[in-house]
Amino acid sequence: MRRIVFFLLLSAAAVVASIVPAARPADEQASPVFVTKIPSGYRDWRFISTAHEAGNLNSIGVLLGNEVAFQAYREGKLPFPDGTMLVALHYKHVASDENNKVFGQPQSFVAGPPTNVQVMVKDSKKYAATGGWGFGHFQDGKPATSAFMKPCFPCHAKETDHDFVFTRYAP
Amino acid sequence: MRRIVFFLLLSAAAVVASIVPAARPADEQASPVFVTKIPSGYRDWRFISTAHEAGNLNSIGVLLGNEVAFQAYREGKLPFPDGTMLVALHYKHVASDENNKVFGQPQSFVAGPPTNVQVMVKDSKKYAATGGWGFGHFQDGKPATSAFMKPCFPCHAKETDHDFVFTRYAP
Repeated sequence: MRRIVFFLLLSAAAVVASIVPAARPADEQASPVFVTKIPSGYRDWRFISTAHEAGNLNSIGVLLGNEVAFQAYREGKLPFPDGTMLVALHYKHVASDENNKVFGQPQSFVAGPPTNVQVMVKDSKKYAATGGWGFGHFQDGKPATSAFMKPCFPCHAKETDHDFVFTRYAP
Repeated sequence: MRRIVFFLLLSAAAVVASIVPAARPADEQASPVFVTKIPSGYRDWRFISTAHEAGNLNSIGVLLGNEVAFQAYREGKLPFPDGTMLVALHYKHVASDENNKVFGQPQSFVAGPPTNVQVMVKDSKKYAATGGWGFGHFQDGKPATSAFMKPCFPCHAKETDHDFVFTRYAP
């Protein structure tokens, strides 16, 4: 009997815990929430577009989207629906000696070593404080600090015409 | 009865036709065969890598692969198995005024108007004369002429270490 009561008490505690959010310090409640885990299977997602950032970034990359994202892009659906997930895969923009030899001139740049993976996840409730988007940045699979992530939304917030997402679909 | 005989004759003719290739002029038999139809569903295929061609080409693009291609790339399987299909989607490499305004400096280049779609299809029998690869080039969905296609294989033939395919997998 004691065991049953203990089990019931435990269950009741679990139900209460799932309804009532744990108390958090005031400053944490006010600060934005970030994506701290890379969505599984992202490397299999579909191609949205590609971009090259010159200058200090010296980067070439692609944006891939999950099924929800891909359909929204194809149909021009804005704002992006909850469940949209986007990953930007970034690589060093490096000259390809091999290709240049074939072309006979220095013109070819390819994706070199991967630098980071950036993530945007749409969940209008969870990420209400940042336009409905959760932002993530990963190097070698490890998430960036909250301090590093702070400028993400203020910058994306400038893209008001396209639900805070810079990249457009490449046909 | 006549109808049955006619049907049998037709069937026999179909079987013979599927076994014996139609006679072709000698020069056509010697010349390579090209891919003249874009594989359906290619835009849904998975991302292999991205590249930027500077100079006159001024192009940014990606290589996508069908399931056979993607698995072969992931497993490092060489030569690529029959059924491998690769498409290179090329776009004008254009400055993004919108992104540059946000970054505060001219550094961002994105995929502009699409220029062409190039295709490689592995079929070691059909394309035996060109290393087992059929090459295709499409502008606005229309295939290039045979004359235009002639330099494809001689150029790819230089890539002996990677089964005549330049692009490597971007992780």
